[in-house]
Amino acid sequence: MLIVAALGGNALLRRGQRLDQSVQQRNIDAAVRSLAGLASDHRLVITHGNGPQVGLLALAQEAYRDATPYSLDVLGSETQGMIGYLVEEAMREALPAREVATLLTQVMVDPADPAFAHPTKRIGPGYTEVEARRLIAERGWMVARDGVAYRRIVASPAPQRILEMAAIRLLVEHDVTVICAGGGGVPVAADPSGAWRGVEAVIDKDYTAALLAREIHADLLLLLTDVDAVQLHWGASEARKIHMATPLTLRREQFAEGTMAPKVEAACRFVESTGHRAAIGSLDQAGAILRGLAGTNVVRDGITPMSFWPDTDGINL
Amino acid sequence: MLIVAALGGNALLRRGQRLDQSVQQRNIDAAVRSLAGLASDHRLVITHGNGPQVGLLALAQEAYRDATPYSLDVLGSETQGMIGYLVEEAMREALPAREVATLLTQVMVDPADPAFAHPTKRIGPGYTEVEARRLIAERGWMVARDGVAYRRIVASPAPQRILEMAAIRLLVEHDVTVICAGGGGVPVAADPSGAWRGVEAVIDKDYTAALLAREIHADLLLLLTDVDAVQLHWGASEARKIHMATPLTLRREQFAEGTMAPKVEAACRFVESTGHRAAIGSLDQAGAILRGLAGTNVVRDGITPMSFWPDTDGINL
Repeated sequence: MLIVAALGGNALLRRGQRLDQSVQQRNIDAAVRSLAGLASDHRLVITHGNGPQVGLLALAQEAYRDATPYSLDVLGSETQGMIGYLVEEAMREALPAREVATLLTQVMVDPADPAFAHPTKRIGPGYTEVEARRLIAERGWMVARDGVAYRRIVASPAPQRILEMAAIRLLVEHDVTVICAGGGGVPVAADPSGAWRGVEAVIDKDYTAALLAREIHADLLLLLTDVDAVQLHWGASEARKIHMATPLTLRREQFAEGTMAPKVEAACRFVESTGHRAAIGSLDQAGAILRGLAGTNVVRDGITPMSFWPDTDGINL
Repeated sequence: MLIVAALGGNALLRRGQRLDQSVQQRNIDAAVRSLAGLASDHRLVITHGNGPQVGLLALAQEAYRDATPYSLDVLGSETQGMIGYLVEEAMREALPAREVATLLTQVMVDPADPAFAHPTKRIGPGYTEVEARRLIAERGWMVARDGVAYRRIVASPAPQRILEMAAIRLLVEHDVTVICAGGGGVPVAADPSGAWRGVEAVIDKDYTAALLAREIHADLLLLLTDVDAVQLHWGASEARKIHMATPLTLRREQFAEGTMAPKVEAACRFVESTGHRAAIGSLDQAGAILRGLAGTNVVRDGITPMSFWPDTDGINL
């Protein structure tokens, strides 16, 4: 079986944790131990988020005054290097007999994507109003209020095409465990002259994972995070975990933007376009999710929902 | 023909230039235009230096006080991401019909390498004596005097094995232009338990290029820099460019450490182990060097030296 596993940025560096290397290394070692069980029996492609890591690099370069800050696409490529290295090293330790490789990944976006007119992704640190005004004037940033602070916002355009697809496919076909598409891929666009240029945007990593999974004909898309299932009425007293659902039934519900909504949408897209299963769940239950014993399993419309789980504290949609 | 081309760090960011993205991007675009002529007719693997880039990341993280600075191996992986991205983007623009991919590269070193007892590579910014003493105490760094300042020094162990070799070979065999082994590769070592750990060292990128070229059975190793040939008695009035030489004749001469010596040694190793040609010369003459019309050409002992160049202001050794 060929599995694409997407690791949430929070699985690698959790909210409130210090952005230290030792913290990140410990989290990645734990994440990879969870994934190693999959990689030993199946072909595996690993993608990952990079939000906290891009934030760290942005803060560091703001603190250093002797070079003009690098653009977001370059910072993204740096985090692909950093995280890819740490994941690859941990995977080589966990499964010494497997070949593992990290491919830098650029993803084409459409400059006419309506997302560019409505930036939604908050990135980087919080600023005062004075700082925010200066950054808008000096750098042409868009800045939005976020609680008491101001933060940069950028667009989140749809991933159109993974530019290194042929290389990824080749490695996967030859049983290499591939780490790629980190942070959703570095967004690039071709200008009318045919020149490729980085774009200051953030592609949703789960959407890129769904595209990647479709393009390499994966049998399963795993969207792994720090909660064990998608919930209906999350946070309310009548909250219920969803065992199993179809794109049709999931799309009738509302999920909070910024948390589960993109994962649900990514899972639906993969299932609709391939007929194969997607699942959303906790990284440390990756093995159980693979066997249909945990997580929220999304299967194609038309399949009669049945409980995958042995217990019954969740529901089928 | 399969060519490994190693780009000097100075070809990407020259001494005295600001460490700005726009400067780096312009240099890389120019470098890639020189290489594109090779890639259109031949299989090409590109490696590159990363000295100035690691320096920049080190300065930025020193300026930012809210996270413990990351180790040199992690910074190296970040620069592989950054430079690989910029080179790949430029190559895709220059040769839209070619597949191009960047592979993160880890290189095994031997913890018992004698180089660890005699660190030689100066890295990062200059410090005052007070700062230097603090860094020695806090981080266990080795620091050496460099002119009026103090700089960190690290070991430069020999590259033993490129860990992603199978993946690189596979991509090359399928006509993908591969960017890899940036900065000589991230140095790693396996501890007795089998765990891989990054090593705070710098592998000479030309030595790694020679190892890579040997392992993928390259027909030609190009070590490209900002001077047009290796010179005898460099800087003196009797300085003479070397047209052509063999490892035997080159090894009789002395070349300044830190500049040409590692390139000469890397070229000799490749030629000795494969019998194929290596050449050292200027990046913007890559095409002429390929045809034997420029640069210092190193051929195997036993071949009767003949002038490759049409003019005669250089010598054969």
